[in-house]
Formats: sequence, structure tokens, C-alpha cells
Amino acid sequence: MPDSPLNVLFIMTDQMRADCLSVLKHPVVRTPNLDSLAEEGVLFRQAYVQAAVCGPSRMCFYTGRYPHATRSPWNEVPLPGDEVTMGHYFNRAGYRAALCGKTHYTPDPMTDPDAQPESGIEHDTLAGLEAWELNDGRGDGWLRYLQQQGYGADVLDNPFGVNQPPGADKDRSAYPTNVSREHSDTAFMTDRAIDFMKDAGSTPWFLHLSYFKPHLPIVAPYPYNEMYDPATSPEPNRIPEELENPHPFHIPYRTERKGIPYDEERVWRQRRATYYGLITEIDDHLGRIFRYMKAHGLWENTLIVFTSDHGEYVGDHWMNEKELFYDEAYNVPFIIRDPRVESDSTRGTICDRFVESVDVLPTFLDACGLGSSDPIQGCSLVPLLHGEVPGDWRTAVHADWDFRFYWSPKLLGVPPHKCRGWMVRDTRFKYWHFNGMPDVLFDLVADPKELHNVADRPEYAGVINEYRLELLDWRMSNEDVSRVSWTYERRPGFGKNPFEDPPNVPADH
Amino acid sequence: MPDSPLNVLFIMTDQMRADCLSVLKHPVVRTPNLDSLAEEGVLFRQAYVQAAVCGPSRMCFYTGRYPHATRSPWNEVPLPGDEVTMGHYFNRAGYRAALCGKTHYTPDPMTDPDAQPESGIEHDTLAGLEAWELNDGRGDGWLRYLQQQGYGADVLDNPFGVNQPPGADKDRSAYPTNVSREHSDTAFMTDRAIDFMKDAGSTPWFLHLSYFKPHLPIVAPYPYNEMYDPATSPEPNRIPEELENPHPFHIPYRTERKGIPYDEERVWRQRRATYYGLITEIDDHLGRIFRYMKAHGLWENTLIVFTSDHGEYVGDHWMNEKELFYDEAYNVPFIIRDPRVESDSTRGTICDRFVESVDVLPTFLDACGLGSSDPIQGCSLVPLLHGEVPGDWRTAVHADWDFRFYWSPKLLGVPPHKCRGWMVRDTRFKYWHFNGMPDVLFDLVADPKELHNVADRPEYAGVINEYRLELLDWRMSNEDVSRVSWTYERRPGFGKNPFEDPPNVPADH
Repeated sequence: MPDSPLNVLFIMTDQMRADCLSVLKHPVVRTPNLDSLAEEGVLFRQAYVQAAVCGPSRMCFYTGRYPHATRSPWNEVPLPGDEVTMGHYFNRAGYRAALCGKTHYTPDPMTDPDAQPESGIEHDTLAGLEAWELNDGRGDGWLRYLQQQGYGADVLDNPFGVNQPPGADKDRSAYPTNVSREHSDTAFMTDRAIDFMKDAGSTPWFLHLSYFKPHLPIVAPYPYNEMYDPATSPEPNRIPEELENPHPFHIPYRTERKGIPYDEERVWRQRRATYYGLITEIDDHLGRIFRYMKAHGLWENTLIVFTSDHGEYVGDHWMNEKELFYDEAYNVPFIIRDPRVESDSTRGTICDRFVESVDVLPTFLDACGLGSSDPIQGCSLVPLLHGEVPGDWRTAVHADWDFRFYWSPKLLGVPPHKCRGWMVRDTRFKYWHFNGMPDVLFDLVADPKELHNVADRPEYAGVINEYRLELLDWRMSNEDVSRVSWTYERRPGFGKNPFEDPPNVPADH
Repeated sequence: MPDSPLNVLFIMTDQMRADCLSVLKHPVVRTPNLDSLAEEGVLFRQAYVQAAVCGPSRMCFYTGRYPHATRSPWNEVPLPGDEVTMGHYFNRAGYRAALCGKTHYTPDPMTDPDAQPESGIEHDTLAGLEAWELNDGRGDGWLRYLQQQGYGADVLDNPFGVNQPPGADKDRSAYPTNVSREHSDTAFMTDRAIDFMKDAGSTPWFLHLSYFKPHLPIVAPYPYNEMYDPATSPEPNRIPEELENPHPFHIPYRTERKGIPYDEERVWRQRRATYYGLITEIDDHLGRIFRYMKAHGLWENTLIVFTSDHGEYVGDHWMNEKELFYDEAYNVPFIIRDPRVESDSTRGTICDRFVESVDVLPTFLDACGLGSSDPIQGCSLVPLLHGEVPGDWRTAVHADWDFRFYWSPKLLGVPPHKCRGWMVRDTRFKYWHFNGMPDVLFDLVADPKELHNVADRPEYAGVINEYRLELLDWRMSNEDVSRVSWTYERRPGFGKNPFEDPPNVPADH
């Protein structure tokens, strides 16, 4: 174990499903570099995000706090200026803490009247991170780079345009992007991450490398667009019953989020194939980073976490995107490689303990010896890396969703304050509770693929009461304590034991 | 109705029970001036606070938001700097908005590093209010005034000391305070409130007149200490069963909050009598203010709200103070006098609709034509003043309590994150749910005095499930939306209806 502080490389993809790793025996996609990372670290198979939309999910990763505590329940809802993020923690500890890629962070106009979202704006810092290179899909740096490489205005206007011949009858995702593989956003952000490592030199660093892909649009540069044969794409996880007797929001949501095209076999086959291609593209570039780190003495003093902000249906449950609480949206790939000897006993193992995105920040702080504090609501995963399982480890994961921002509830007549859904998932059941719509319950033992909603069946009434209580107590146990911990330290006379007074002395205050 | 803007006089007592009004036929206490106010306005008999501790309760009054939203769940937990209070709303509207008395407000050290609690510190503003005169029981202005009146250091050190002869065998609350009636804190704050009205002149004003009494210590100046005969004090609302088969926290709490002295009859008789005396003292001084207002043309252009931040047991349920969720702690006196003709039809009526402390701010804003906005979670009471009952008026009240700050949970082995209690009360049941302790249920139809906890009885299992669901949905429907409303207005392209697109066009974003 080196004496120098541990660096941290926090790699995030956008909209990558948990099952898309060849180490998990996915039937199609190949991810040899991520497989190697898993073989040298721990693969957490039951890792869940707190929200399946980019912004709120990322704010939970950054703060270690649940969406009701970050108060950023959807994209473009600002993160309050008093929230403390990874960037702040590592900066305070003397690290150089930087962002290379996407955050979907929206600064707080109440504390910064000039605050603007990240897109297209020059920033020095974002969510406490040095803005080394920004890319929300159309980042200035990447577009300038494309211009330098000789791409014209048509490509700069639409860097995800594809070379689709006139009269082509395949889905658009079959054709290669006009931007070639060596200039893709994934390639460019990888170059920039390596540049950062060079620039940081011997200063301890924290780098959040955050790829925009495999997020929509599902289009890839050659050869990734044709790397996988659509004929091999696995069938979507869906049955007609889901549309014949749907939950009220299933139909409008699949329209709003453009799931209907996936009803067509040629569409889902091709989109899935290209989606896998985009993942292998990322894997190839991660290989470049890992080789650079090994060649430059960074492999053995850098903690690496690889994950995604949420998943993607690509046709499962007749859906596109990531709305609703299915596992395809909330379960994410999650690998940690801790280079230190204390974690040797778990290398190459798969851990099925429930992990939440709020655990990432406390894990970083614990691993780097920076301590942790009360407002953080997640748990350090370091004990699991050391092969220890805390006796009180969580037995369920939770999520919440504020869907007032969509049109579907307007169509359904659900008012904004009733657009709330909370989810609990353990190994037996997944329960979705809504305050303005019917419940959803899946019996995961009988129905692990979440195809049969049994919430209306009388024999499950007791289960529903049990899980409602679970949700109630989860929220009560996770009230925001951001100001409370400060109070504990500072309150005059706090900690005086009143039971030391004789109990029968008349009191006057 | 005058053309000039309506002034607002927001009068709050500290720790005054809802039943202590002679207009409600209290057997002992006389409150002729409050009775008159009620005869000219509306007395809300079912008014409840969101928290029964000074600080968090007041922050709900000031912001119109529930404790989980203000994030100030206990005394000395700072109100976050981005919370918008009555003071801010009225200042923005061009009012002179001032505080005369107590707030129990703690400023936010995250936005103001020099922030200090109000006590003993000079402030220009507190919670957005001009600090006209501060008094948390030992306010600088009052103490300086006492010094000017010739009181010595012993009184200034302990302005609530009593003239108790050696060997006296009555409870301390029987004896008069060393400070005489014309110099008491209640008298002084009343003088200062009248001074403020003079000083404001023709500027529209908002005055929060906030008395420290009848808060502990229960000691009163002559003649209020002996105004009521202890022999007439009503018996405490309590039965032996409450101690024989108690909820786990009942015993430590009554020790921690010094309820045990009230087991003695001479103690509760005397304390009750003096407590009533303190209330009549306040009533006498309110009479002075009301006469001043009538004599100076302020009576017909000032909206008056009278209430308290919470109640007090004075021996009920074998308790002192205001912990636990009994009505004696959460139900408060609540009178509104709206001088305008639109409210004439309801003058002198008693309203039994459920009112919460979060309704006060939206009522002020509505009455003064200042509008209201999303982060406010309460409802304007103006329709009720006009004799209209909105069809969706609430049918229950709620409270929440964070008791990690006490010693009792430490004795009981309840960890901080399990020190949460949420309460719902309607006309049928009161249900207290804890995430770290057993539930409490009172069947209010059979047991309106909350003496028999039936939570363990099998016949109430269905009721408990029903009220757990109610609590869950209450919290889901009241998530904090402070940043969301801002987003609605500002999000680029928000409001575009996706259903206007042809649904089968392949989508890429």
C-alpha cells in the first residue's frame, strides 16, 4: 500500500443497464476491460440508483443523500447551494477534484443569481468540481475539437447525425455517425481524462469521468454501429398482459417517452445491437485509460468506481428510456477496484448485498480517510470490499420519483402534488406506492422479471400493508439532518443529562 | 373597508393551552379581552401546531411550511438561509415588518458565518423581521428597562425570582415575582408594541407581538399570582392506567421534562392557578393594545391573529411541558379578527374546521392581497372567514417530532435516526407512529381525552393500517417544492406537449 493519498477515478456512463457486462454472461455485449476491472475488484450485482433520471440520480451520487434531502427531484431543478458534494469534500481535503464530462447539475439561483445550467456555458466549477472538460452531449470543448479536425457546420449542429443513405429502410441506429470513432465524444472525453492525469502530476486527485453514452440517441460511429448482429439481440422482457391490463400510467408514459417504436421487431433488434456497440466503445476507451494508468504508476494508488446514473429499457416492458420503477431502469452496473491489500480477499468476487447510489460518496471518503458526517445518508462499502458484512446492512433498496414534470399525469388528471411515487425492493417483493394512482406490487420470487402486477389480489393485502409501513419508516429514518449535526456540536449546554438532577425537585424551565 | 393596505398584528403567546379562554367556558381563567376579540372575529377551536416545541413550531408559522420542509426540527436548529418568512414577504410588499418579543429563531451558519441565536445578541433583523424589541425571557431591552426602574443586580440576574418567605411551604409559583406588574415582561412588551404602532405612523405595518408567557417558569407578579384560588383548579386529565401500562417513553419523558412534581396535588393546584393568572395578565395587556388601536384609528384597518406556539400539560397525562402528541400540547388558541365587511357574516362564530399553523402565513398574504406561491404548504383561512368552506378542506391535522435531542431516547436505546414520530388526528382517531418505538392510537369517539392507548388491540389493526397509509400519503403530498416552482417557470421548453408529436416517429432524445 503506497504512502501517498489514494486518488479516485469515478467513472459514470449515462443510461447503461446493469446486465450489459460480459462478466455477467450477457448473451451479446463484450466488455473485456470492465470484466478485467471486476476481476481485480468487486462487482456489485444489486446496485440501485435512487432516481432513474440523470439530474436527480447524479445529485444523490454527489451528495450521498436521497432525493427528498437534495431537493433536486428532476432535471433542471437546482441543487440547493448549501448541499455539499464530492467536489467540496475532496477540495477541502487538498485534492484536485475535477469533472470530465457530464453532470446534469443545475446551480442554485437563490444563492447565485447568475446561475445557469451547464450546457453551453463556461464554468470554472460545477457542483464543487473543477470544470476540466464539460460534455452534456454537445460540449463546447468537443465541438471545438471536431471543428479543428475539419468537421463542417452540419456536424457541429448535429454531432449525432448519421450517414443514412436515401431510401434506407433500416432503423436510423443502424448507420454510422458522421463523426468517426477516433473523434467521438467517448474518445474525446477519454483523451481529456488522460490529459487530466498528466496535468495533475503528483497532486492527489479525484476525477469524475462521466460519459454521455450509451444515452440516446442510440447511434454509434463505425464499427460500433455494426459490431453486433441485430439478429442476436435478446428478446425484450415484456408480455402482452402488460398492455392489455396496464397500470394507468403505462400507456401515456410509453407514448410520452417514445416507447411505441419498440413494438416493432426491427427497431428493438437494431437499437439493442447499436446500444451494445456504444457500450463496447466505452469499454475500449476504458482500456486505454487503464493501460495509461498502469504504465504511469497510477494503477496501484487509485480507487476506481465504475457505474451508471440509471438504466434503459430498450423495449423491455414496452418502454423506451427509464421512467417507472422497473429494475431495467434502477439497477446499474457497479464495480469497485480498491488497489490496497486490505481488499485482496474480495478480488474477482460478485457481491449481492444491496447497494445504493448514496453509498458512493461515503465509500470514497472512508477509503481516503476523510471521515464522513451526518448529512450523508448512504453507507461506506469499504467493509464489503474487505470481506466484512456489517450486521445491520440494508435488506432493501428505495427510490422516489417526482413525475409532475411530465405530460402523462396531466392527461391522467393527477395534480402536481399527487405526482409522487416511492419504491421499495428487497429479495421478495418490489412495491411501488403512489399518492395519486394505484399501487404496483411484484412478487419477485414467483415473478423475477416484474411482469405480473399483483397489487389488486386480495392474498397480497397483508404484504402491501407491510411494505407501506416499510416505506413510512424508511422516510422517517431518513429525514434530512443537514442542519441538525451542526446543532449537536454547537448548542450551548447540549448533552447535559437531566437524569442527574434529583427527579423530584420542582422545575421551572 | 378602508382604501389603505391592511395592517397585520400577529399576537403569539408561548405555551398557552387552547382551552384557557373564558369564551370557551373554562371553569377558572378569565380572558375578557380575548373573548371580545373572538366575538368580533372567528374562534377556531380545532387549531393545531405542527410541532410542540417553540423553535420548530414558530418556523412553521413563519414560513407556512411543515417541519420536514423548514428543516428546523428543534430549538436551535437553524432555519436555512433560503427559507422565506413572513418578514421577507411583508418587507417585499413595502410594509414595515417588525418583531416585538420572542422568535426562537436561529440563523443559518451556512449562509451567515457570524450567525448567533437571538438571545443576548444585538440584531437588526431576525427571520426577516426588524428587531424592534427582542425578548426570549431575558431580553436586553427589558433588563435595561428594569435597571432604569431601579431594580438591582439580583433581579437583573434572575428576573423571574419570587418573593418567597423563609420556611414557606407553598409551591414557589404561589409567590409574587420580585418584578412588579407594571414592569413585567408582558407589560413592557405591550408598551413596546404600542410604541411601534406610534413609530410606524401611516406606513403599512406587520407586527409580530410575541409574549414569552405563560411559558415556564410559572411565576407571576402580584396580583396575578393569587388571582385564582388553587382550590378551584380543575383536576388534571390523567388516570393511573397511563403510568401502570405506559408507552415506553412516558416514564423517562416525564422525568426528563420534570413532570413528577405534578403528581402532588398542592403543586398542580398552585401551578395551574398561577398559569391562569399569567394568561389573565396577558389578556389585561391585550386590552390596553386594543383600546389604543381603537382610539387611534387602527382597529378597522388591522387584521389581528391571536394564537400560541404550543400548549402545556400542567399535570395532564402526568406530564409537564409539551412533549408527546396529546391535544393539550398541540391544540392552541386561535382567533382571527378581520375588520373588513366581507367577514361580517362570521363574527362571533366558532369554527371547528381543522386549522394548522402553516395556514397563518398564507392567510396573511391572501388577506393583504399579496398572493402566495408554491413553497407554502398551508392554506389561506380567508374563505372560512367569509363563511365559505372549500370543498377539499383538510379533514385531519398532522405533526412531526424529532426527539433525538432528548436524553430519554438515549436511556431507551433508541438511536438518533429512529427518534421520529409523526401524528395524524381527525375527528375519529389520533394515531402516533414512531419508527423506533411502538405506536399509539386513541379512539377519540370513545375516548376523547386520550387516556386509553388501543394500538395493541387486534380490533384496531385495520385502523392502524389505514392511518399509516394516510401518513405516508400526507408526506408524499407535501414534499418540499421550494426549488421546483422556480424550475417550472424557467426550464427551457418546459410545457411542450409531447403528445402533439406523431407517436410513431422514432425518437432519439
